[in-house]
Amino acid sequence: MGRYLDQINSPRDVRALTLAQLDRLAGEIREEIIGTVAKNGGHLASNLGVVELTLALHCVFETPQDKIIWDVGHQCYVHKLVTGRREQFSSLRCYGGLSGFPRPDESEHDAFGTGHSSTSISVALGMVLARDFRGDRNNVVAVIGDGSMTGGMAFEALNHAGQLKKDLIVVLNDNKMSISANVGAMSGYLNRIRTDPKYSRGKDEIEHILRRIPTIGSTVAKVAERIKDSFKYLVVPGMIFEELGFTYLGPIDGHNIPSMLETLEQAKALGGPVLVHVVTEKGRGYAPAVQKADKFHGIGPFDINSGSSLEKNDISTYTEIFGRTLVKLAEQDPAIVAITAAMCSGTGLSGFAQKFPERFFDVGIAEQHAVTLAAGLASEGFKPVVAIYSTFLQRAYDQIIHDVCLPKLPVVFAVDRAGIVGDDGPTHHGLFDISYLRSVPNMSIMAPADENELQHMLHTALQLNSPCALRFPRGTGLGVALDRHSRALSVGQAEVLVEGKDITLLAVGNTVPAARRAASVLKEQGVLATVINARFIKPLDEECITRWAARTGRLITVEENILAGGFGASVLELLAVKDMTGVQVKCLGIGDIFLEHGSQSFLRDKYGLQSENIVNIARRMIDSGQTKGTKIISLGGGA
Amino acid sequence: MGRYLDQINSPRDVRALTLAQLDRLAGEIREEIIGTVAKNGGHLASNLGVVELTLALHCVFETPQDKIIWDVGHQCYVHKLVTGRREQFSSLRCYGGLSGFPRPDESEHDAFGTGHSSTSISVALGMVLARDFRGDRNNVVAVIGDGSMTGGMAFEALNHAGQLKKDLIVVLNDNKMSISANVGAMSGYLNRIRTDPKYSRGKDEIEHILRRIPTIGSTVAKVAERIKDSFKYLVVPGMIFEELGFTYLGPIDGHNIPSMLETLEQAKALGGPVLVHVVTEKGRGYAPAVQKADKFHGIGPFDINSGSSLEKNDISTYTEIFGRTLVKLAEQDPAIVAITAAMCSGTGLSGFAQKFPERFFDVGIAEQHAVTLAAGLASEGFKPVVAIYSTFLQRAYDQIIHDVCLPKLPVVFAVDRAGIVGDDGPTHHGLFDISYLRSVPNMSIMAPADENELQHMLHTALQLNSPCALRFPRGTGLGVALDRHSRALSVGQAEVLVEGKDITLLAVGNTVPAARRAASVLKEQGVLATVINARFIKPLDEECITRWAARTGRLITVEENILAGGFGASVLELLAVKDMTGVQVKCLGIGDIFLEHGSQSFLRDKYGLQSENIVNIARRMIDSGQTKGTKIISLGGGA
Repeated sequence: MGRYLDQINSPRDVRALTLAQLDRLAGEIREEIIGTVAKNGGHLASNLGVVELTLALHCVFETPQDKIIWDVGHQCYVHKLVTGRREQFSSLRCYGGLSGFPRPDESEHDAFGTGHSSTSISVALGMVLARDFRGDRNNVVAVIGDGSMTGGMAFEALNHAGQLKKDLIVVLNDNKMSISANVGAMSGYLNRIRTDPKYSRGKDEIEHILRRIPTIGSTVAKVAERIKDSFKYLVVPGMIFEELGFTYLGPIDGHNIPSMLETLEQAKALGGPVLVHVVTEKGRGYAPAVQKADKFHGIGPFDINSGSSLEKNDISTYTEIFGRTLVKLAEQDPAIVAITAAMCSGTGLSGFAQKFPERFFDVGIAEQHAVTLAAGLASEGFKPVVAIYSTFLQRAYDQIIHDVCLPKLPVVFAVDRAGIVGDDGPTHHGLFDISYLRSVPNMSIMAPADENELQHMLHTALQLNSPCALRFPRGTGLGVALDRHSRALSVGQAEVLVEGKDITLLAVGNTVPAARRAASVLKEQGVLATVINARFIKPLDEECITRWAARTGRLITVEENILAGGFGASVLELLAVKDMTGVQVKCLGIGDIFLEHGSQSFLRDKYGLQSENIVNIARRMIDSGQTKGTKIISLGGGA
Repeated sequence: MGRYLDQINSPRDVRALTLAQLDRLAGEIREEIIGTVAKNGGHLASNLGVVELTLALHCVFETPQDKIIWDVGHQCYVHKLVTGRREQFSSLRCYGGLSGFPRPDESEHDAFGTGHSSTSISVALGMVLARDFRGDRNNVVAVIGDGSMTGGMAFEALNHAGQLKKDLIVVLNDNKMSISANVGAMSGYLNRIRTDPKYSRGKDEIEHILRRIPTIGSTVAKVAERIKDSFKYLVVPGMIFEELGFTYLGPIDGHNIPSMLETLEQAKALGGPVLVHVVTEKGRGYAPAVQKADKFHGIGPFDINSGSSLEKNDISTYTEIFGRTLVKLAEQDPAIVAITAAMCSGTGLSGFAQKFPERFFDVGIAEQHAVTLAAGLASEGFKPVVAIYSTFLQRAYDQIIHDVCLPKLPVVFAVDRAGIVGDDGPTHHGLFDISYLRSVPNMSIMAPADENELQHMLHTALQLNSPCALRFPRGTGLGVALDRHSRALSVGQAEVLVEGKDITLLAVGNTVPAARRAASVLKEQGVLATVINARFIKPLDEECITRWAARTGRLITVEENILAGGFGASVLELLAVKDMTGVQVKCLGIGDIFLEHGSQSFLRDKYGLQSENIVNIARRMIDSGQTKGTKIISLGGGA
């Protein structure tokens, strides 16, 4: 007998199934997702947790007329499978294939693209306003995890929605996790709702009991009256949401389809802002993912039977080296504390958290708070290391400026996943950090050419006594030998790797090896290139860069960042200040576009960050002969 | 008899006063603040509201050992007056004088510098952690308004603090206002606490009543038991805060010093996270400020008797022209909606709000939500205009990238207060927006040279059908004649104002007039300058800029933004791409520093954005004669 899944070409087909058939479909979907993610990598646990919820949503709501906004969006695989993308599903997260996140350009059933946390209620509320302006009657549903609910933006939106009183449904998908185990007082509150018997009775039952309180004497009667009047404060579990203007329904079992169908229909009928509290299990149906939901949050290819990774890497990742070095340094210096925003293991801090539990803070998906908490600690003499992915640190841009850099506090930002991240695509690439950090006064920025340098840079950053960002890429290092002890580098000093008279290749971070390879190829062709590892994006090694620019007359900068305002731009600014008119400069990096998903190496090739392109550009500059014979003038001073 | 205020040299002197004397001191402080702000301008209403609260805080807590963090910080005048800065108070907000915000470099009693909203609980929590690491016992107090509490970051910090259970006092200064009247469901909740008699009884009273409920029959007994057990859900007003792990005390009258002393002492004794809910009146003691608290939030010099402004300006501000133009355009186009984050009148939207109340949304101090709400509306065919000051828009950087620019949605950002804002100083200057917006793909950016151009640019932005930012300065326009009808400008086209062969002055926004004046002065000296009004920061008018750069061989860019990654950098990037080696370029703008407070004109002079400096730089470039006779090469293409 064939699979039900193979007959699902649109949500309409889901709605035609019986409850028993839906249950079987759920099982088939789990198998499909496990099989595909085991091959392609991806977000597993979150998707296995929402299989029944997604089916229930598509039974009650009719997309694309009704809108479903998936917060973060990494739980959209089930949705993709039942909205006409079953056949492409094997291409998940491959270049040119399905995205791992909702994409309106992929399907009309994807109402809005997501990728970062806590945006769904805001988007949904905007769509609600638009609907009401138009006089339409479609439903708008935001599906948001309890992890995402710790992001302040979700609270901002709840606060606004609760006031506007428009018809809006928020499904709180409570799986007790963000990427790591969930934290915060709100999490404790949700836990009490789920487990405290005080909360477990329905409104009807309590009303029934209250009606049976006899009326004896006037004082007691008044009290009883007030009790009846305000019984919801006593028994309604979602009182916080009720006080914020939402009707709270739940908690309900997110793996029980009939129960969800009933409650979602009720939510639809109620009107006004409604919050449906659904309790799900991350990784449901696949034992390894249930047991290690954080490991199976986002994962590379793995063996289905054992659950163990198929990625064989003897070489440590940058993340691991960062984590290990931090532990070593923290052993020496009790002022070092570590802060993460719901990504303890992703940022390499698990070891630190184990070794120094009292010096480790996971604040939840709350980058803004993470940074300013660090500022508070730093203002009192501590040395906080804030480890956040480049793309997520964007959330704390204002706090970096005002709370850290303006008072020049010694906060170290470990900017992981800087540059091209690969399969997760445009919402996860870390291509803006050089631009947005470089323009902030008092900030220093470093990028290591290899994992050994990362050790020394972390050491350096922690001695700097002022704000410092350390950007490093996703993935393994180069496998270079690690110095036994980390040491402080000379601040603002670049490293000249190769000396040559014809052209200067000035690379930063993980583009240094490509520049080095390019120099070797050029040498075979008779072109002598200087290769400089910039090390410091800010402060620049002005002396070294201007010297070699003047000496060679030609300069290529290479960075894995957007070009606008990036490292290359900072070099152009320097040359302008120094009156270095006549030096021919080309900046390699990412142009004015959002990068699609695909493997890191594929995208690096495609966007010209490999040695071949550097060689080509160098050849073109030299062959054009523009500056040949031109005297290069280097005046000090400037504007 | 002398003033008590004149004897207050430190908080110790405040603590020595009797209650009656404190009351008199409060009156003297109000007089001092009204007198000074009437002369210097400043934040009036917020400071008049916290006179008694500040005195009570300094009676109960001993700064600098105890830490008081003023959220936003514009309510710190009373604090400054009683912490040794009485004699400098007349220099408030003047260049070189007292800052209008807390500044640790001004006094050890200013524990942390603030300026943007909703950061205080995070800072305080960081200081609490530091204290506990050190084993100290000092108190840490965050004072946060109900307006700031609508910012999501405050929720992130509450959520974390509620979990950590450390000793921390949060004073919620509830004046029912942010800058505008407060909004949001939380505001409604606080209002219910203040006014609903259900909330108005103390815990003790209710416990007393509950003890008197007789026990009749087992069911009722059980119910009564549960009622007693959970009575706080019935009667404690601050249940939301209690559920988030805080002990709630209040609401108490923020103008009743004895009541505050008692409650703050209680808070200190309790331990753990405590929230003290204090109700104050914005503008208290000065009738015009009470009646128009939004007008008297931040105000220029005014007449004390009448409360009317002493700033005589027949010329409209950019803000006003923006607001009026938007109303006109919205009359024609029902798809236009306006969104602000707690600054309706400050962003010029009062007229729009009056005329189109259903198309106007004030979301509270919630920039992140504001931007993504706009994205939701835009994705459904609407044209949202998000009006936020440049410095506050930093809060929504990530949302601009991911929710607006990635899906290329037609959201228009009215970036008011771009550039130097003057007296409010480093936390309020809008000097980063060109850098942080320019690096985002799909974004267009314009800056008008005068208020007439602003009309046309808003018109243009609303026709663009993609993300667009319109940056304009604080203050009055040039007084130029306004075209009766706004029209669309040609996208990406600069305006050549003067043609000259010797040098090109490429200015953007409000620096264009200075460039024009500089050209006149240069002409008198025999130097012929081309003056270009760039109009578009992105996309650049590449053809026009490269043509004039090649023709004159020398180029000066002028912008009121940080230089790193700014407009000048974008021109340098362009010239590098176009192989325009040999053009001598100088970029004028703000260097790698945070600007202090002072008048706009003073700071523009000081930082070289006036015509004199442009003339000097031009002369120096020409006199150095570097490029004289050098053939300028302009090749198309590039890397």
